[in-house]
Amino acid sequence: MASALRYSSKLRMATRVPAARALSTTARLRAAEKPFFPNEPTAPSVSTAIPGPKNKAAAAELDEVFDVRSLNMLTDYSQSVGNYIADLDGNKLLDVYAQIASIPVGYNNPNLLEATKSPEMTNALINRPALGNFPSADWSHILKTGILRAAPKGLNQVFTAMAGSDANETAYKAAFMYYRQLQRGGPEVEFTEEELQSTMNNQGPGSPQLSILSFKSAFHGRLFGSLSTTRSKPIHKLDIPAFDWPQATFPQLKYPLEDHVQENALEEQRCLQEVERLIKEFHNPVAAVMVEPIQSEGGDNHASPAFFRGLREITKRNNVLFIVDEVQTGVGATGKFWAHDHWNLETPPDMVTFSKKAQTAGYYFGNPALRPNKPYRQFNTWMGDPARALIFRAIIDEVERLGLVEHTRVTGDYLFAGLERLAQKYPEHFQNLRGKGQGTFIAWDTPKRDEVLAKAKTIGINIGGSGAQAVRLRPMLVFQKHHADILLESLEKLVKLV
Amino acid sequence: MASALRYSSKLRMATRVPAARALSTTARLRAAEKPFFPNEPTAPSVSTAIPGPKNKAAAAELDEVFDVRSLNMLTDYSQSVGNYIADLDGNKLLDVYAQIASIPVGYNNPNLLEATKSPEMTNALINRPALGNFPSADWSHILKTGILRAAPKGLNQVFTAMAGSDANETAYKAAFMYYRQLQRGGPEVEFTEEELQSTMNNQGPGSPQLSILSFKSAFHGRLFGSLSTTRSKPIHKLDIPAFDWPQATFPQLKYPLEDHVQENALEEQRCLQEVERLIKEFHNPVAAVMVEPIQSEGGDNHASPAFFRGLREITKRNNVLFIVDEVQTGVGATGKFWAHDHWNLETPPDMVTFSKKAQTAGYYFGNPALRPNKPYRQFNTWMGDPARALIFRAIIDEVERLGLVEHTRVTGDYLFAGLERLAQKYPEHFQNLRGKGQGTFIAWDTPKRDEVLAKAKTIGINIGGSGAQAVRLRPMLVFQKHHADILLESLEKLVKLV
Repeated sequence: MASALRYSSKLRMATRVPAARALSTTARLRAAEKPFFPNEPTAPSVSTAIPGPKNKAAAAELDEVFDVRSLNMLTDYSQSVGNYIADLDGNKLLDVYAQIASIPVGYNNPNLLEATKSPEMTNALINRPALGNFPSADWSHILKTGILRAAPKGLNQVFTAMAGSDANETAYKAAFMYYRQLQRGGPEVEFTEEELQSTMNNQGPGSPQLSILSFKSAFHGRLFGSLSTTRSKPIHKLDIPAFDWPQATFPQLKYPLEDHVQENALEEQRCLQEVERLIKEFHNPVAAVMVEPIQSEGGDNHASPAFFRGLREITKRNNVLFIVDEVQTGVGATGKFWAHDHWNLETPPDMVTFSKKAQTAGYYFGNPALRPNKPYRQFNTWMGDPARALIFRAIIDEVERLGLVEHTRVTGDYLFAGLERLAQKYPEHFQNLRGKGQGTFIAWDTPKRDEVLAKAKTIGINIGGSGAQAVRLRPMLVFQKHHADILLESLEKLVKLV
Repeated sequence: MASALRYSSKLRMATRVPAARALSTTARLRAAEKPFFPNEPTAPSVSTAIPGPKNKAAAAELDEVFDVRSLNMLTDYSQSVGNYIADLDGNKLLDVYAQIASIPVGYNNPNLLEATKSPEMTNALINRPALGNFPSADWSHILKTGILRAAPKGLNQVFTAMAGSDANETAYKAAFMYYRQLQRGGPEVEFTEEELQSTMNNQGPGSPQLSILSFKSAFHGRLFGSLSTTRSKPIHKLDIPAFDWPQATFPQLKYPLEDHVQENALEEQRCLQEVERLIKEFHNPVAAVMVEPIQSEGGDNHASPAFFRGLREITKRNNVLFIVDEVQTGVGATGKFWAHDHWNLETPPDMVTFSKKAQTAGYYFGNPALRPNKPYRQFNTWMGDPARALIFRAIIDEVERLGLVEHTRVTGDYLFAGLERLAQKYPEHFQNLRGKGQGTFIAWDTPKRDEVLAKAKTIGINIGGSGAQAVRLRPMLVFQKHHADILLESLEKLVKLV
């Protein structure tokens, strides 16, 4: 089933591409693909200041009860369609941020709409189960036709969760339990009286001082365990107690990658050595290494498949688990369903976490020993939300039906080529362009980044940043070449505006 | 609005109570109330072993991909109605566990069903927003007519979350930020360079060694921060690293409370002194005290309003925040909308967390200084789920329409009186009966507790435990006197079966 999903993807729209005609380049490219959303606007439209008067008034009202200082815009979802997001003042922006990389198949996708009308969905919404105790009779079916249909190769089990942070933290918990089980000598070895008593006091040996190794600039969430592995920005971490866990340097590569092969390989070697040294020497023993395929919040930092294969080898060699955080990279945006599919690993990661475009969350695993040795060790009341699991299933259907993974690979290549042209023309504004061959998961550095992001809205583009100076593209999987053309034109305009 | 909800509640059904007739006591009581669900079974029906053959087969299939060792029963929600839960083999059990205390208004409630059909719900499901960045235009309206309509007195703000654990952890984060802000001298004081740098290394002063004080036997969740305040059972905590945070003794009262007033008051005094001593002396300074109104997972442990007023005074006096975890006690089950409404506090708690029966989660607060001093300090991609917020709104409507808080108070008194009769007759089987005047939030201790719970299913009662030896009742708010009669009769049968 999973392999069907991975390999049946083909660009169905490609069969409808007409021969090139005597049109302007832009018009020709726009004509080259049939829109996935026939009712989408053909271009952004902005008719007020942003935020406009209605947005301002509504924001003031919301501010009475809810913190709005991170507000981008109050959104009129009823008027948003496909790749276009509408605000309260009637402005319609091409959205290449997509709810922080979490909308996969377009606003008001008609097939998702259809999925909301099923009796299964109604049941999931009004009879919310405690999935560990009282799963619905069809939970196995929902998993097998949904979340697990998209499971990474080699991982056929899932623990379901609510969002990225708890997906990551439950994976960490599984790692700690597994590590201690190895130390004890197996699943059948009972806890000692000392362990049982000390853990009630938050002390070792029952609550051991073990650690998760993550990387500088990583982002893995904002709850206490996940935040202890997050190293993106001080504002995410300040004033919150953290575990004394190690961080290794994530490779700081030079772009374009193909021009710096040798020195980048050396940099990655250096980082791998640091990882292995920390695993061997850090004072709080390392139970798992946690890594993003592309550091997404931390500035769109890439590393090569060889680096990740190296991590897999080091973790194997040291009996440490290897967890891949695909919360932001997963579900097609890099031109593979899972970004780690780019690595050609010999053995799969021990766990892969997901959220965002999946619209639900959790971690995949394959090794049955990652089920804790007793029930109720990995448990909570809801353990996810079947309503959101049903939405993910509908998303997978849509991805498969339209061949959106392959589509995103092809569109990403097209978009990247356009950005390379811009970078040649305006090198100062498009520095360190990165994400080649990674679908639409593309970024670059630019001076006055925050001003760029704000100005982009005024010309109809909703776009986000990552790290301190990167513009990050996170369009949906239904982003097409004619959207890429509009985006490229707008980015060129922005060069002159900022 | 909130007061309307609290005070308009009246037992509408009471107007329909017929005069007592020449019927058996049970029949008379059953006739006394019109059922909220006319299509409910009139009694449990069990026709197979539990688990029956279909359940066993389906569990084996689910086990291929999902841990089923905590499975109670595979549920046929399409056949579940009101207070009755149906399993795959056609058995229908009176459900006084209710998805671990999280179903408020009955299975397949027709008004919740109606709420799933609104355009707002469809939008929330298919266009899931990043609520901190791109809330829907009606988010303010959804909050004000829903989550905030039910806000505890004095708390008019909300931070929305996904489930109990992250609701509690985000409240802790708010507490730590607030505490450090007081230490710094106000919201306008900038972070030092040392703080900015040290926090990236998970070290103080940027990542300070502050603590949350919780109580022995408390349960506040299972992620890393919440688990560090959970002290229920070793199996919840073993092998997971924990923060070095303090625990105070929760009063160990003698029941019935009215027979042990003096010694219980002394016990509570002793515990309050311990709390104050820990706040003053614990090596990791205490930013907040976290407490459940009734320790729910930890064994249904009660304390008096005076104890909680004492906690409020101590926390005020020591400039420490007072957080009340109403994840399990909230939304009506104790005969008040919020259990802390029983306490007559002079000033409200600083934060109140909610989940379970709310079907969504978060924390309420009132003090504007609990909004962190800068944006993006308390933030995540989804910040809750508007689909679930809409369900909570429909639940609040239903609670109000049917007067379910007052109804639960009255039904609870009726049930408690019946249990007192059983306790007199079978004192060994109904020890430490507790929860008088607390709606249906009732428990008692019994020998062979786990056997009692298992046997209960065979006679048609789905019931849960808490702590090591308590049977806990967590019926829905639509539990009525005729259900109480069935429950009481069944509990008497169980005495003879175990």
